[in-house]
Amino acid sequence: MSSKLAKGAIYLIPNTLGGESTQDILPQEVMQIATQLRVFAVEEIKSARRLLRKMDRNFPIDECTFRVVNKNTKEAELMDLLLFLIKGVDIGVISEAGCPGVADPGAALVHLAHTQNIQIKPLVGPSSILLALMGSGFNGQQFTFHGYLPKERKERVKKLRDFEMDTKRNGTTHLFMDTPFRNMNVLEDLLNELGDLTELCIASNLTLPTQSIRTMAVVDWREKAYDLSKIPVIFAIGKGQ
Amino acid sequence: MSSKLAKGAIYLIPNTLGGESTQDILPQEVMQIATQLRVFAVEEIKSARRLLRKMDRNFPIDECTFRVVNKNTKEAELMDLLLFLIKGVDIGVISEAGCPGVADPGAALVHLAHTQNIQIKPLVGPSSILLALMGSGFNGQQFTFHGYLPKERKERVKKLRDFEMDTKRNGTTHLFMDTPFRNMNVLEDLLNELGDLTELCIASNLTLPTQSIRTMAVVDWREKAYDLSKIPVIFAIGKGQ
Repeated sequence: MSSKLAKGAIYLIPNTLGGESTQDILPQEVMQIATQLRVFAVEEIKSARRLLRKMDRNFPIDECTFRVVNKNTKEAELMDLLLFLIKGVDIGVISEAGCPGVADPGAALVHLAHTQNIQIKPLVGPSSILLALMGSGFNGQQFTFHGYLPKERKERVKKLRDFEMDTKRNGTTHLFMDTPFRNMNVLEDLLNELGDLTELCIASNLTLPTQSIRTMAVVDWREKAYDLSKIPVIFAIGKGQ
Repeated sequence: MSSKLAKGAIYLIPNTLGGESTQDILPQEVMQIATQLRVFAVEEIKSARRLLRKMDRNFPIDECTFRVVNKNTKEAELMDLLLFLIKGVDIGVISEAGCPGVADPGAALVHLAHTQNIQIKPLVGPSSILLALMGSGFNGQQFTFHGYLPKERKERVKKLRDFEMDTKRNGTTHLFMDTPFRNMNVLEDLLNELGDLTELCIASNLTLPTQSIRTMAVVDWREKAYDLSKIPVIFAIGKGQ
């Protein structure tokens, strides 16, 4: 078996959550590491290139290899990327937004790489889930992220009620999201189906100039008119510690 | 009621996870914002001062107000901090390590501030939970962080088995931690009580030069001798997506 050091490493490179400058939102080290890499496994080539160009205007995009990794990627394609690593080439993983591997493809490549003893190096950057949790004021010692909610209303409402019940009993914070065009359906269900005093946090446009993070009881949210139909939102049900 | 803009905001300032330089691990913007503040709610004054001095050698520590916020802080003290905000003074919240409000005090102040419509601004920085999740290769669409495990062995083992069962059934990733001096007890329980093929990720010394993130089946972990007794560790049970 070849030594560990001879193999390449996987660098998990966080992307911005919108149009903000990389200088503001990413640590210097992330930009230094990312712009030294030449092989990338990316969720979408266009946004990955844009990120690299934002990090360094003169980044040599044309000298790089980009492979798309998404939910349709077959294992043979991942094996192909693994070969780069085994030969000693480092790979950068870049998502469309936020941290690779969290509510996002990229985890499959990492999972496979562990079987070959490849070093994994997650880098620090924005995660809307974590920012929403921090900003909510809810219990951060015990929390669950549920990803996308069920599309079907009955199932969705059942889930939301389960979250509410678990928060009441155990104090767990429940975070979830949906595609922007279903945000208003989710909000409607939350306001119609949850108890008046259940606390709800709505965190939208995180890290953007239009960012908003509000925690209020459901009864107070009902008084507000919000348009969440076209913006990225993280919802949370929880309570203070 | 005074207008929103007249009130101060709460900035949640991530701390480093160890001795690394702030330049490497924190975005430029975080340091710019933090060093303009003069009132801080901190988990521990010493580590907060150290962080601010690392951000700016000439930071005027002596012109600043530091208030300790931890699990013993009474509501009257939080109300006192709220007064600063209502009067239009911004407050920075700093934990001993990582992101304020996540497995950490500070959430209580944020929770109270929401009742007064105070703006909350979580800033981007290192979270050992998120870095471990990214690095594990496990399901990031559905995960739970459980904080510290029960001290009592029987209860702890029951929890670990519950996590294992839920991962098998629902694919959820379960992340947890303990104080360094109990890490070896946790590891022992994991290796003795979980199934051979259950996958376990051990992420230690995150962001430090000695960082290690490994995902393997329990049967393979049993072959390894690891000393986790004095280092920060995040454990995860999960599976690939």
